[in-house]
Amino acid sequence: MAERTPQDAFKETPLDETTLDPSTPAEWAAMRSLAHRMVDLSFDHMESRREQSVWQQLPGTVRSVLKDEELPRRGEGAVAACDSFLQNVLPYGVGNTHPRFWGWVMGGGTPVGIVAELLAATMNPNVGGFDDSATMVELQVIRWLAELMGMPVHSSGLLMSGGTMANLIGLVVGRYARAGYDVRAEGLQAGPPLRVYCTSEAHSWLKKSMEMMGMGRSSLRIIGVDARFMMNLDELRQAIADDRAAGCRPICVVATAGTVNTGATDDLVAIADICQAEQMWFHVDGAFGALAYWSEKLRPLVRGIERADSVAFDLHKWGYMPYDIGCVLIRDAELHKAAFATGASYLTAMERGPAAGGLYFADRNIELSRGFRALKAWMSLKAYGADAITAQIEKNVEQSAYLAYLVGASHKLQLAAEVPLNIVCLRYQGADDDQNKEILMRLQERGIAIPSGTIINGRFAIRVAHSNHRSRREDFDLLVDALESIGAEVMAGH
Amino acid sequence: MAERTPQDAFKETPLDETTLDPSTPAEWAAMRSLAHRMVDLSFDHMESRREQSVWQQLPGTVRSVLKDEELPRRGEGAVAACDSFLQNVLPYGVGNTHPRFWGWVMGGGTPVGIVAELLAATMNPNVGGFDDSATMVELQVIRWLAELMGMPVHSSGLLMSGGTMANLIGLVVGRYARAGYDVRAEGLQAGPPLRVYCTSEAHSWLKKSMEMMGMGRSSLRIIGVDARFMMNLDELRQAIADDRAAGCRPICVVATAGTVNTGATDDLVAIADICQAEQMWFHVDGAFGALAYWSEKLRPLVRGIERADSVAFDLHKWGYMPYDIGCVLIRDAELHKAAFATGASYLTAMERGPAAGGLYFADRNIELSRGFRALKAWMSLKAYGADAITAQIEKNVEQSAYLAYLVGASHKLQLAAEVPLNIVCLRYQGADDDQNKEILMRLQERGIAIPSGTIINGRFAIRVAHSNHRSRREDFDLLVDALESIGAEVMAGH
Repeated sequence: MAERTPQDAFKETPLDETTLDPSTPAEWAAMRSLAHRMVDLSFDHMESRREQSVWQQLPGTVRSVLKDEELPRRGEGAVAACDSFLQNVLPYGVGNTHPRFWGWVMGGGTPVGIVAELLAATMNPNVGGFDDSATMVELQVIRWLAELMGMPVHSSGLLMSGGTMANLIGLVVGRYARAGYDVRAEGLQAGPPLRVYCTSEAHSWLKKSMEMMGMGRSSLRIIGVDARFMMNLDELRQAIADDRAAGCRPICVVATAGTVNTGATDDLVAIADICQAEQMWFHVDGAFGALAYWSEKLRPLVRGIERADSVAFDLHKWGYMPYDIGCVLIRDAELHKAAFATGASYLTAMERGPAAGGLYFADRNIELSRGFRALKAWMSLKAYGADAITAQIEKNVEQSAYLAYLVGASHKLQLAAEVPLNIVCLRYQGADDDQNKEILMRLQERGIAIPSGTIINGRFAIRVAHSNHRSRREDFDLLVDALESIGAEVMAGH
Repeated sequence: MAERTPQDAFKETPLDETTLDPSTPAEWAAMRSLAHRMVDLSFDHMESRREQSVWQQLPGTVRSVLKDEELPRRGEGAVAACDSFLQNVLPYGVGNTHPRFWGWVMGGGTPVGIVAELLAATMNPNVGGFDDSATMVELQVIRWLAELMGMPVHSSGLLMSGGTMANLIGLVVGRYARAGYDVRAEGLQAGPPLRVYCTSEAHSWLKKSMEMMGMGRSSLRIIGVDARFMMNLDELRQAIADDRAAGCRPICVVATAGTVNTGATDDLVAIADICQAEQMWFHVDGAFGALAYWSEKLRPLVRGIERADSVAFDLHKWGYMPYDIGCVLIRDAELHKAAFATGASYLTAMERGPAAGGLYFADRNIELSRGFRALKAWMSLKAYGADAITAQIEKNVEQSAYLAYLVGASHKLQLAAEVPLNIVCLRYQGADDDQNKEILMRLQERGIAIPSGTIINGRFAIRVAHSNHRSRREDFDLLVDALESIGAEVMAGH
């Protein structure tokens, strides 16, 4: 008889060592079979998406289920959870996978993206920057994206949840670089008031970031735009000079490649020159517009991005990848690291093993735990190729021009702004703001198409923001027909 | 003959309307079949995970592929992309899905989490807070999590990428609430210096957040800890009084439920009392430790969380969900909204349609685009039930106590700190820092187990951070045996 060890005594306390994995081969088989069923339903859903409604309001019964169901203390099992998803959730999404969804600049995902997400969740790494394959995949994606964006091959960067976070990282590095003192250590009260410049067309991430970064939105100088919604450069120069004279320190211009309202792009080359002359940080918010740079044909529209100190863009919008994924590229890799790196005792650098050399991404970012969103970018670029994605972007711009043409040719509709890229803002002729809004809401409610609304020059406009690889010209024919007929209804007071 | 319309003329310009979806039924069938093959390989991988190495260094050939492959301008197709993943990426992860991974507090995911990620990518909503099912799912998850955390049912909150972002949101709301003036508009220079308090054991997110928020890390008052690594409350009271006397404004105490080094928890009830008396914001960083609250048995260890103004925790750690997912709960829902809401013209509120009532989450957060990470939380809670997840947490604590027992009983090993929860820090007796580090690296390199390292009281320690539902007591037997034998090797100079 073997000697009785102290462990044996401890082990006599019974402990249920069941896991959250299936426990038996039969349970594994059942779970695997459920996953196969979900793949089939996922593909059924995608293949028939065009035949479904774009968006439908949640029925009251479904709303109740999603609102009133009590915390499940005891599990109902994976099959029931999947069935509830299929019944109560999948049919009532916002609609962005449908060919006639053009709201708020959203992408619709792809089958390759779906498979990538399945594989990412299987491998499930924390991509903090260990010595592992997932970290290398993200670094490779960053190199590829830097090349596509015309940035130097040794640029730094990383993938974030989306444009806001990517832009924020760029701005934080810019502030660190240009504040003129150790803002990380001492905070804003140790230096002169810092000033950042953008136009009235800039996206709301910037005000929110200025607030969060403690500079306050009053430190943001809003520069006017010209008739094409591009930054007024004389006004910019004057504002910088005025601020310097008042004892403030201008640190950064945030230019936009593809404004959210109309798709306008500031004169990036001129702003790069101004930033260079003024020793300011040149950040480009290119949430969707930056991707025009991938196309030789469209590149002139966004020329100058390649001179940015930092540029942020989304891949879940015009890169057609599933939510969520955005990217920031930083020209000066050393500055990027200097703006974020910190030593933490539980991240002790090791010479060998998975933490050898420290945690790459944790040192370039506020986040420490990071999911494997790089995989969907890596697999999308490998499977489709950058050229195929670029061709979709060009197609969207052509289709937007087609829609602009249809609106111009219509006797009932009119453009509310120029259409430089992929955003078409329009109004029903003679309709006031409330009537245009009513037309939009009826169009949405009937599940025909989902444009969104915005304010252009103080007036409401229907906005078709097009980053949808599934749309066809015939979808825009249908949209125009629907807008004309719903418009007639509304104008007639029906 | 039908009349020739202007559209017809435009349409004569040929346009390739191919999408990124498969084009033909045969292509759809091939893509579907690839997805099925990936499900099988995913399940093969999971079922045999215990038999694989925890971590292995990337071979030079694989490293070259992941480093040197040129930007794929032309696609290689989805099959080739998947094959490259299977060959070059999947085998070389950091190891956290393996039963003997206990590094840096990471979770290992579950099969239900994988299926949820597949479904989330299929539906692919932007969960900015539209009138859609995905938004309702996230709100339901927040209600359930508030209940599990003992927070009021009407608490606000949202899911973020992880603990850092969740904690940051809590701190931003706290600053807004307690700054005493409109810090969003005016910035930090308009008020007195603000002060935030934490211990020397606090996680690095806090320093990084203070820096990013413009307060500078010098605005963070580091309070000492007692022998059990808990905040010294007299020192806290004194620091607050000193800062007030010096004209600074103490706004927030960040307490920790489960420190990253040793799993210690500050006296949350006492700190709640101090914050109440001082009219300061009480934030709890409960990255993993907060989940102990879900267990009746463990709840006394983290009592006081239910009094927090804001609490942040991860679900990809001790909630066993796939990366990435963290949560912040805010007691005062109105304050939460007031700290972030902004009006943007392209987010014009509508009375009906998918944007009816504004964008819920965009108004409570810096991010605008947000993925559907709520689905994996919703499906995990529904499928397993909260009780089953709680049982795993309790099991991990019992197994940690078992490991602590084994270390205490060993003649070669010793504990480096008390083990209040799920983190066991240990050293080889008589070994110096370099020798302990060498033992750890050999253990990792041989693919036996992955603990991490840290610094405790100025000395290196091997740290077993246990949030792994797949581990068994026998895995800790194996760990102790391996540490003893590798330790003997290292001490003998081999």
